[in-house]
Amino acid sequence: MLRREISRTLRIKSSLPALFTKECRNYGTSYSTVHQEPSGPQIKTEIPGPKSKALLKEMMDIQQCGSVQIFANLEKSAGNYFADADGNLFLDTYTHISSVPLGYNHPALLNAFSTDSDVRTLVNRPALGVFPSDDWPKKLRNVLLSVAPPGLHHVMTMMCGACSNENAFKAAFILYCTRKRGGRTTFTDEELKTALLNIPPGSPELSIMSFKGPNRNGAFHGRSFGSLATTKSKAIHKLDFPTFEWPVARFPEYKYPLEEFKRENEQEDKECLADVEDQFDRWEKKKPIAGVIIEPIQAEGGDNEASPEFFQELQKICQRRGAALIMDEVQTGCGPTGKMWCHEHFNLQSPPDLVTFSKKMLTGGFYFKPDYLPPQPFRIFNTWMGDPSKLVLLEQVIKVIKTESLLQLVEETGKILKSGLHTLETEFPFMINSVRGRGTFLAFDVATPELTG
Amino acid sequence: MLRREISRTLRIKSSLPALFTKECRNYGTSYSTVHQEPSGPQIKTEIPGPKSKALLKEMMDIQQCGSVQIFANLEKSAGNYFADADGNLFLDTYTHISSVPLGYNHPALLNAFSTDSDVRTLVNRPALGVFPSDDWPKKLRNVLLSVAPPGLHHVMTMMCGACSNENAFKAAFILYCTRKRGGRTTFTDEELKTALLNIPPGSPELSIMSFKGPNRNGAFHGRSFGSLATTKSKAIHKLDFPTFEWPVARFPEYKYPLEEFKRENEQEDKECLADVEDQFDRWEKKKPIAGVIIEPIQAEGGDNEASPEFFQELQKICQRRGAALIMDEVQTGCGPTGKMWCHEHFNLQSPPDLVTFSKKMLTGGFYFKPDYLPPQPFRIFNTWMGDPSKLVLLEQVIKVIKTESLLQLVEETGKILKSGLHTLETEFPFMINSVRGRGTFLAFDVATPELTG
Repeated sequence: MLRREISRTLRIKSSLPALFTKECRNYGTSYSTVHQEPSGPQIKTEIPGPKSKALLKEMMDIQQCGSVQIFANLEKSAGNYFADADGNLFLDTYTHISSVPLGYNHPALLNAFSTDSDVRTLVNRPALGVFPSDDWPKKLRNVLLSVAPPGLHHVMTMMCGACSNENAFKAAFILYCTRKRGGRTTFTDEELKTALLNIPPGSPELSIMSFKGPNRNGAFHGRSFGSLATTKSKAIHKLDFPTFEWPVARFPEYKYPLEEFKRENEQEDKECLADVEDQFDRWEKKKPIAGVIIEPIQAEGGDNEASPEFFQELQKICQRRGAALIMDEVQTGCGPTGKMWCHEHFNLQSPPDLVTFSKKMLTGGFYFKPDYLPPQPFRIFNTWMGDPSKLVLLEQVIKVIKTESLLQLVEETGKILKSGLHTLETEFPFMINSVRGRGTFLAFDVATPELTG
Repeated sequence: MLRREISRTLRIKSSLPALFTKECRNYGTSYSTVHQEPSGPQIKTEIPGPKSKALLKEMMDIQQCGSVQIFANLEKSAGNYFADADGNLFLDTYTHISSVPLGYNHPALLNAFSTDSDVRTLVNRPALGVFPSDDWPKKLRNVLLSVAPPGLHHVMTMMCGACSNENAFKAAFILYCTRKRGGRTTFTDEELKTALLNIPPGSPELSIMSFKGPNRNGAFHGRSFGSLATTKSKAIHKLDFPTFEWPVARFPEYKYPLEEFKRENEQEDKECLADVEDQFDRWEKKKPIAGVIIEPIQAEGGDNEASPEFFQELQKICQRRGAALIMDEVQTGCGPTGKMWCHEHFNLQSPPDLVTFSKKMLTGGFYFKPDYLPPQPFRIFNTWMGDPSKLVLLEQVIKVIKTESLLQLVEETGKILKSGLHTLETEFPFMINSVRGRGTFLAFDVATPELTG
């Protein structure tokens, strides 16, 4: 194995394969200028090209945008192909940081705001926690609950992945504290007073546990201060910022091919689960763990996967310890693994307590078990509570996924792709190895940084 | 004075007065069903009416939505009038939690997405920190920088007010730490390693100071975990959540009418500024203060205002102490005080270091001095970094504000309204008092809760 030489991971996260051309045919689109998906990538200039470089220079006068790689030409982007300002065409296997669920300029989306009612939703953005519009309960049911993880029937909308995770933390803290109060749903004067002073008992010392591999990067759950405390993927996200000292348990690091290292990987699961138990013990006195947040596949951390058995046992530990199991499906949700939610691969004995989403779902939010309904209003709350115009788009995304059986297509395509990658790693073991993932959410390691291209 | 009996504050935050009918005339709107603004409020049912009650019951099956008061009928809402599901019409002096800048269904907004390019912006939401579209630098300049606070020429976009404030905190922490490192812009192995462990020196013990009155509620800066640590308005936002213990200084509490209590209020300013200095001293060893966040008018805290002199002196203290002055204009920005930014009333000797916005601006974000440009990319960063489709709407909002001289109108209307309220408090001192605010962002106290109606 080239384990020790591995320095980079290549990821393939094309979620819902390019049925763009087919889509164009199926939708009697009224949109004027839908381009056909190009026949292949085309590189005309150095990357970034002169136009992207000029735009970057212009933008550097306004903000620190050293992270910008190239500028998009949204008119010419189509399907799985991303067009840049210089006329280059890229096959976007990353689906724009997992944020473009049906490819670029999908006709179903271009024509989404076709009724006066949809345009009003877009223009009069309501404060959903106080004055939602009269069609909102129906939208929640017909759009978000129509694709809820099996067994979950409740949902809150939010703005983005980070705030979805943070509000799932809040739901976990609320249930934990309510139980600790013996079910009391009112607050003492001391609790009310100390909450405003940022000290216990009103603002208690509690924690959320997240995961990190011993050798690889770890969890990514967002960059707002609460979610950032659980993020363990890259130091650059965290440097210079005060944070919460919270528990971190080991995420499994498997040896590949899986079938060859069955015993070692089972042992790895056991050790990681023992570490989870150990963290619960160690933090019990200091900052009890109210919730455990985990990605079904650690995405930014390097596409680290864990076995269904690991997740099943983790759920049992959480249940026994009275901590919420928060499944962060911000990257894995909405189809890329061949199921709507990646944790559906795990055959859990009951649904996760909270399942957070964003990115491809176009709106943030989280599904949850009824235990996590706060006993009081205004606890899981902010001014906007999401953006109903995103549900207008998501409704079309879900319709296309269902009509075109895209989940099945992801599964079939993923199998072919993974099998091809397995063939390649057998043929070129000194170049690539550790092929892994589910659906088209696949990754492999390469021997040297140069090989990432 | 009725100071001791005061139990409720009534607020009037109609930002940009109802020029809806005028707008309808001026815009050759192509939108099919723009309603005229109603001639007045109309209450047909009990509040909430039977339809709102039925919808609330339906929604309670999906989430905790006890905060929902009534459901909107977006088709019938027009201008300053909010229509509910039961056919009631309300004069919305709160502009939908300060989020509707030009009233409901403004024709300029209904027709905003008129070009293919705008629709593509809406449908292909880019990751702005990595792959913005080729028109983005121009949009930043022509839309957001066209209304930048005087003296500020840099801007970052974000999703909402809370994440705008948190990213302003991050900018403050980055500059504070960079200075402390003597300008070094690389990181030591220890810093990189400890940042991932959530401990110093990588994740240092630093703080942001916010404000609270001794008798009134205090600051509101959002509900995500970082911003929530600085929020001091209501315990219900904070209960059961772990938080940062961070410094809080006294926000002035004035006696009204201002001209009658000039000496007392000057003394109040002095005491509050002394408290600010005191906090800097007290936290220096424990958790040094890297930034001070303050609202130009504490909105959720009860419309508490402070004098220009207070803000001028506060800025001097921040400069002397090397802490960022973060002006939270999430509620006060975009016109309601008669200036685009409320802090323009304060004649500061230089702009605030960071000015955050959201709500009426329709997009989150913050303006900042060039010192606050992080030396590295990916520091102030997330997947979406805002939403360009909101700038399509904001561009129209700004156009209407300028074309119709709405800021001037707010100033004139506000003067008339405030003068009327002053007459009322003179005539009925046992009912209302403490008239205060700027532009149409006005408030007064009433003697008993019943009087709030």
